[in-house]
Amino acid sequence: MLRATTTKRLALLSARRGYATSVAKQYFPNEPTQPSVKTQSIPGPKSKEGLAELHKAWDSSAAYFLSDYYKSIGNYLQDVDGNVMLDVYGQIASNPLGYNNPALIESARSDEAVNALVNRPATGNFPGNDYAKILEDGVLKVAPKGMPHVWTALSGSDANETAFKAAFIYQQAKRRGGMDKPFTAEELESTMNNQKPGSPELSILSFESSFHGRTFGSLSCTRSKPIHKIDIPAFNWPKAPFPKLQYPLEDNVQANKEEEARCLEEFEKILTTWHSPVAAIIVEPIQAEGGDNHASPAFFRSLREITQRHGVLMIVDEVQTGVGATGKFWAHEHWNLPTPPDMVTFSKKAQTAGYYFSNPELRPYLPFRQFNTWCGDPSKLVLAKSIYKEILDKDLVTKTAETGDYLMAELTKLSEKYPTQFQNLRGQGTFVAWDAATPADRDAFIANMRNNGVNMGGCGSQSARLRPTLVFEKSHVDTLVDVIKKVL
Amino acid sequence: MLRATTTKRLALLSARRGYATSVAKQYFPNEPTQPSVKTQSIPGPKSKEGLAELHKAWDSSAAYFLSDYYKSIGNYLQDVDGNVMLDVYGQIASNPLGYNNPALIESARSDEAVNALVNRPATGNFPGNDYAKILEDGVLKVAPKGMPHVWTALSGSDANETAFKAAFIYQQAKRRGGMDKPFTAEELESTMNNQKPGSPELSILSFESSFHGRTFGSLSCTRSKPIHKIDIPAFNWPKAPFPKLQYPLEDNVQANKEEEARCLEEFEKILTTWHSPVAAIIVEPIQAEGGDNHASPAFFRSLREITQRHGVLMIVDEVQTGVGATGKFWAHEHWNLPTPPDMVTFSKKAQTAGYYFSNPELRPYLPFRQFNTWCGDPSKLVLAKSIYKEILDKDLVTKTAETGDYLMAELTKLSEKYPTQFQNLRGQGTFVAWDAATPADRDAFIANMRNNGVNMGGCGSQSARLRPTLVFEKSHVDTLVDVIKKVL
Repeated sequence: MLRATTTKRLALLSARRGYATSVAKQYFPNEPTQPSVKTQSIPGPKSKEGLAELHKAWDSSAAYFLSDYYKSIGNYLQDVDGNVMLDVYGQIASNPLGYNNPALIESARSDEAVNALVNRPATGNFPGNDYAKILEDGVLKVAPKGMPHVWTALSGSDANETAFKAAFIYQQAKRRGGMDKPFTAEELESTMNNQKPGSPELSILSFESSFHGRTFGSLSCTRSKPIHKIDIPAFNWPKAPFPKLQYPLEDNVQANKEEEARCLEEFEKILTTWHSPVAAIIVEPIQAEGGDNHASPAFFRSLREITQRHGVLMIVDEVQTGVGATGKFWAHEHWNLPTPPDMVTFSKKAQTAGYYFSNPELRPYLPFRQFNTWCGDPSKLVLAKSIYKEILDKDLVTKTAETGDYLMAELTKLSEKYPTQFQNLRGQGTFVAWDAATPADRDAFIANMRNNGVNMGGCGSQSARLRPTLVFEKSHVDTLVDVIKKVL
Repeated sequence: MLRATTTKRLALLSARRGYATSVAKQYFPNEPTQPSVKTQSIPGPKSKEGLAELHKAWDSSAAYFLSDYYKSIGNYLQDVDGNVMLDVYGQIASNPLGYNNPALIESARSDEAVNALVNRPATGNFPGNDYAKILEDGVLKVAPKGMPHVWTALSGSDANETAFKAAFIYQQAKRRGGMDKPFTAEELESTMNNQKPGSPELSILSFESSFHGRTFGSLSCTRSKPIHKIDIPAFNWPKAPFPKLQYPLEDNVQANKEEEARCLEEFEKILTTWHSPVAAIIVEPIQAEGGDNHASPAFFRSLREITQRHGVLMIVDEVQTGVGATGKFWAHEHWNLPTPPDMVTFSKKAQTAGYYFSNPELRPYLPFRQFNTWCGDPSKLVLAKSIYKEILDKDLVTKTAETGDYLMAELTKLSEKYPTQFQNLRGQGTFVAWDAATPADRDAFIANMRNNGVNMGGCGSQSARLRPTLVFEKSHVDTLVDVIKKVL
C-alpha cells in the first residue's frame, strides 16, 4: 500500500515536472538536473586565460566565457572551468535540439552528411543528385503554408539580402511589363557604374528597432542600436514606427489598438511618399534583437492588406522566430493571414538559411541573377533535415507551446512578486522576455544569473530574453525559476 | 634484361607523366585515367529529368548537369547518366583536393568535426575551448606574411563585406583622432536613420571588370557583367580602370607598361577626387570572373605605394586566387610587396572564409561592431585545417607550380597550332585562361569539351578558364590536351 502510494506520488510529481513524456531525458539520459558553478564568478580563470590567448589573433572581446562543447549536454552548457550552466540563450536562439543531441551526431556521421561536406558543390551550376531529395525531406517539408518555393543561403543576413534581390528584380520586371522584357542599353551600361536606371533607386522599408542582419543591404534595414550601424555607409531606405505595446495586454486593449492604428497610418504614409519606390517591406513577427517587441495578429494582417493594395512585397523575417520557439513552427502562423507573405526568410535554428516564396515569378527570369559560388550549403541542409525530422517525430513544437504556457505562468507569479524587476513580461511559446527597471539592472541581473548557473541573454536597452532549445521542458523551467528567485 | 629495360621505360614514362610522385594516385588509387562519355551530349536524359524535378521548388536554371558526388573520384566528376568527366573547373575554383579525398573524409568523420557541426556556437559570444587551436593549426598556419590577425566569415562576399566594415570603422576612428574617441550624439542619432554623419558617405574603390561578390556592399564593388548587377540598388562608389594587357607579354613590353601607367594615373586621380572619401580599395591579383585579367607585380606595388601615400587601405581579394592555384599559396606573394596589404580576404578552396590583417587597429575598438550570430563556422575551419595540412605535408603548392609550367608549355604549343581558337593565353600556376575568337565560339568550345568529357568554365565575355584542384597533375594535363586537340 505504502509502495503504491509512493509510486503514485512519484508519478504525479514526475508528470507535473514533465518527466513522464520528457524528450530531453530520452535524448540526454545524463543531462544534469541542475547547474553547478565552481568558480567565484563567470568567466572563471581558465576562461579568462583562454580568451586572452584567442584574442591575440581573433577578436574575442564580445565573448562571455570559453565553452567546452564536448562536455555540454542537452540544455546544459559546460565551460572550461567546469561550470555547468542551464543555457536559456541557446547560442543566440540558434541551438535547436540541445548540445550533443544523439540524433544530430548520427546525422553528422552519416555518409550523406560526409559526402555533402567533403564534396561541397557550386550548387547552382553542379547540384548533386540527392539535392532535390534533401530539400524535399528537409526545408520543403516544413515550408510555410502556400509557399512551395525555396532559395538557399548561408546566414540570416544572406537570406534577407537574397530575398531583397528577388524583390528588386521582380518589381523592375513588373515595371517593364513582364519578366521576359529586355533590358535597355542604358540600363545595361549605367548599372556598370552603379547608376540608375540600371542600378535603380528602389528601397526596402523596415521598422524602428528591427534587426535584419549585418551585411550592407540587411544592415540598412537594421534599426536596433547605433553600435550595430555606426560608421558603416547605408542605403537611404525608409523606416516606419513599430507599435510600442503596453503590458499587461488585457489592461491596455484600447491604448494598444490606438498605438497600432497610429503605426499603420504612419507606415502607409511613408510607404507611399518615400522619395524612392519601396519594393518590399521586411518585418519580424517579434522584434527580437531590438527588445522583443510584439504586435497583434491584426497589425500584421493590416500590413499584409496595405502592402498588397500598393503592390509592395511583404518579407517576413523568421530568422529568430522560426523553427518552433513561439509554439508554432513559423511565428507568422499565429496571424491567420488570408494569403501567405510573399517571402519568409529563415536561418538560426535551421542551421542553414534561405527564403520561401509563394509566387513563382519571384524567381528571376534569367539564370545567374540570383546566384553565387555555393548558393547555400548542402551539408547544412542535411543537418536541417535531421533537425526537422526530430521536431516533427517528437512533436516538439506542441511541446514547446506547452512548456511556454507553464513558463509564462511561473514567470507571471514572479512578476507579481517582483514588479520592479519584472516589467512588461511578454512572450509566445518559450520566446519570452521582460524588462528590468534600468539597463544597468538588466546587465547586473544577467551577470548574476550566469554566476548562479543560468546563461541568458539581453535584448533592446533593458530587456532580458529567453531563447532556449526546443527540448527545454517543465523541469528546466523549474530550475530556471529557482535560480531567478535566488538571484532576486 | 628485357624486364629491366621495360621497367626502366615504364619508370621513365611514369616520371614524364608525373606518376612517380603522383599525390593523386596516393589519394585516389581508383581515379579514372580518362573521361568516359556515355550520352550523346551532356546533360544526358537523367540529368535533364532530375534538374526538371529540382526546378519545381529550387531554381536550377543555371545548372549544367546533375552530379553524382558519391561516385566522383579525385579530378573526375561523374554525373547521373554515368558520364565521367575530367573536372578542370573544380566547383568554380572551390574544390581544393579532389572529390572524396580520403584525408578530408577522415577529417569530416572526426570527433572534432562532428562536435563543431552539431554544437555550432555563436562564436563571438561563446567560442569553444578548441577554437584558438583550430585557428592556430589552420587558417593562421597559412596566414600571409606579416598578417597575424584573422576574422572569420562564411563566404567570399561575407569576407569582403566584413573587411569593408573594418575599413570604414578604422577610417572613421582615425578621423576622430583615435580608436577610443567617443561618437557624437549627432552620429548616434543620424545612423539610426541611415543618414550622415553616423552613416557616413565613404566608399570602396574597385576596378573595372572586377568581381567581389553578390551581397549589396560587395556587389557595389563588382563590375564584371550587367547580369550580375542589373535591377539591384548600388552604392555610388568609384571604379578605376584595370590594365588590359596585350599578349604574348614578351612582345608587348612597352605597350603594357604604358597601359599600366595610364591606369595608375587614372586610379590616383579617381582616388583623390571622388566626391566621397575612399576608405579602401579592393583588388583581385587576377580578375577571375571578369575574364582572367592579369597585371604586373610592378602595377600592384604601385597600388600599394599610392594607397599608403593617401592613407587609403588596400584589400586584396584572394577568394579565387588564394590557396595555391597560382603556384604560390597566396597570389600576392608574386608581387614582393615591401609591406603587406592591409587586408587579404579568402574563401572558396579554403571552404571557410574571412580576412587576414596586419595592423591590430583594424580590429574595432568596441565589441559587437564586427559581429553576427555565428561569426564564421568552426566546422568549416576544421575542414580548412585538414585541407591546409594536406597542402603543406604534400607540398601541393610547389607541385601545382610545376604542373602549371607543364600545362602552360603544352597550351603554348596548342596556341601556336590554333592561333584563332587560342588567343591571349595567360596564367600563373594552373590558374590559366585564353580567349576564343568570339563569345559564341567560347560557348561552343566549352559545350564541346563537356560533351567530350572535360568540365571547364568560362569567364569574361569570351575566355575559357581552368580552375583545377591542387591534385591536378601532369597526367591530367595530358588528358586535357588530348581532349582539346580532339575538340579543335
